[in-house]
Amino acid sequence: MSTPPAVRIVEVGPRDGLQNEKTQVATADKVELIDRLSATGLRSIEATSFVSPKWVPQLADAAEVFTAITRRPGVGYPVLVPNEQGYERARAVGVEEIAVFAAASEAFNRTNINASIDESLARFAPVMARARADGVKVRGYVSTVLGCPYQGEVPLDDVVRVARALHEMGCYEVSLGDTIGVGTPHKARAMLRAVAAQVPMPALAVHFHDTYGQALSNILACLEEGVAVVDSAVAGVGGCPYARGASGNVASEDVVYMLHGLGIDTGIDLPLLAQTGRWLAERLGRDTGSKVGKALAQP
Amino acid sequence: MSTPPAVRIVEVGPRDGLQNEKTQVATADKVELIDRLSATGLRSIEATSFVSPKWVPQLADAAEVFTAITRRPGVGYPVLVPNEQGYERARAVGVEEIAVFAAASEAFNRTNINASIDESLARFAPVMARARADGVKVRGYVSTVLGCPYQGEVPLDDVVRVARALHEMGCYEVSLGDTIGVGTPHKARAMLRAVAAQVPMPALAVHFHDTYGQALSNILACLEEGVAVVDSAVAGVGGCPYARGASGNVASEDVVYMLHGLGIDTGIDLPLLAQTGRWLAERLGRDTGSKVGKALAQP
Repeated sequence: MSTPPAVRIVEVGPRDGLQNEKTQVATADKVELIDRLSATGLRSIEATSFVSPKWVPQLADAAEVFTAITRRPGVGYPVLVPNEQGYERARAVGVEEIAVFAAASEAFNRTNINASIDESLARFAPVMARARADGVKVRGYVSTVLGCPYQGEVPLDDVVRVARALHEMGCYEVSLGDTIGVGTPHKARAMLRAVAAQVPMPALAVHFHDTYGQALSNILACLEEGVAVVDSAVAGVGGCPYARGASGNVASEDVVYMLHGLGIDTGIDLPLLAQTGRWLAERLGRDTGSKVGKALAQP
Repeated sequence: MSTPPAVRIVEVGPRDGLQNEKTQVATADKVELIDRLSATGLRSIEATSFVSPKWVPQLADAAEVFTAITRRPGVGYPVLVPNEQGYERARAVGVEEIAVFAAASEAFNRTNINASIDESLARFAPVMARARADGVKVRGYVSTVLGCPYQGEVPLDDVVRVARALHEMGCYEVSLGDTIGVGTPHKARAMLRAVAAQVPMPALAVHFHDTYGQALSNILACLEEGVAVVDSAVAGVGGCPYARGASGNVASEDVVYMLHGLGIDTGIDLPLLAQTGRWLAERLGRDTGSKVGKALAQP
């Protein structure tokens, strides 16, 4: 099976990861985490979220964190932005790339954002216009692409429609997220294939949660389908709000180990990344969620 | 990608798993574990080991366990046997299927068994002869098929040679084991393909450890290559003696979840298997090593 010669990892630990951890991480530690990640060779690091602190108290220090990190040339530091207010707060501290989001599931969108999919997409229109005018890059997330905690099955057509809408609105990349981690390889492959028929593959990324341990095999199936951008979180940080105690994001270390083993270039220093994961796990007072992180820690 | 319509899981938790756990499990609990596993729809359960208690004290109660379990019609209960003495002890309690083993790595064989590969294969000849005469089925294990803790790389030719030798000696099935869990999908696929050129695919099984989190993606690659027998251990029990604190066998629950998601029949009741895994983890005083086990435990 052929897989791409190179893959870009989008490290989402500082945002998607820490947002779903029970333990609060100090602002200085968040800054150190991002700076350590910047030194590993990663080219995309989602730094924080400018969603209202009312909804995401874990990342209430977004402006402070973003101001304090050392931004490396050649590394992108997208931040999550829900609306124009978030956009303004982000721009005030010099953000040059943002991420917007919508669910493929109507039930999920209504429950979490209190809006239909079309309404929530429409809310991003003014943000997209300002980003275009300001030369700000925009990444898009589609969540619940392989299942929804409220409605169960999510029709493929809905996934395709939302991914295409985000791309047409101006997102340079659309990340397809299995938010609750229920997917398996054939389904992941079929979903990606359906989306890629409408949005060019180079503009697509995959984002798997490891709730049922399926993330790496889903990523493998998607690599064979041609995707070359993968979201993951160092130390597997984050949890699943819909299954307490269950695993969160797939661990970056485990993804990079697989990619390197497949002969795929990532530009990442794996031992340094694993070290960073163990450092973060210590800050969180628990074991690293990365099996590679554990195995490489042995003398 | 095509995958087989049905897969047989060989549950190795009671042997390969418990043998590598630090916590000693009571004999009555081992019996209950096997009886619970028998109720899940599994058709092969490796029950224990008749290796000398000097080497494997965790399974010193092999005869007692085997005598006490309730053997279901249609379910096989192989036991590990290292030599004629082990064979005799096993037969004395009514064992009808055994498993023999050799490493593909010369260095591993010399270090662990104090014999060359050829010498250790030769030692099995009298066991094989007696098994044939007694109508006892024999399964073969090849270990270190994708890497060795002593010699590093293991030449593919050595893997093929040992697998073929075990098959020619009379093993009805040869299980290819990535003992230290270092393999990745392309390498796993290439290894299986090389062996399958000499031993018919229906006589092959794969056995992955999850030390680096790669087990499921390796299994996926091997399923696509045509293998239809997979070894795994409930709750992911077992550890890696070469990387303390690291993961052991791939968790049966996670494998079965993937197989069912791929539309592959296993005959196994997954919720019941996951329940059994959580029950075992409690006996071991730790969390289940199965992500599916954790996720399904949620209310």
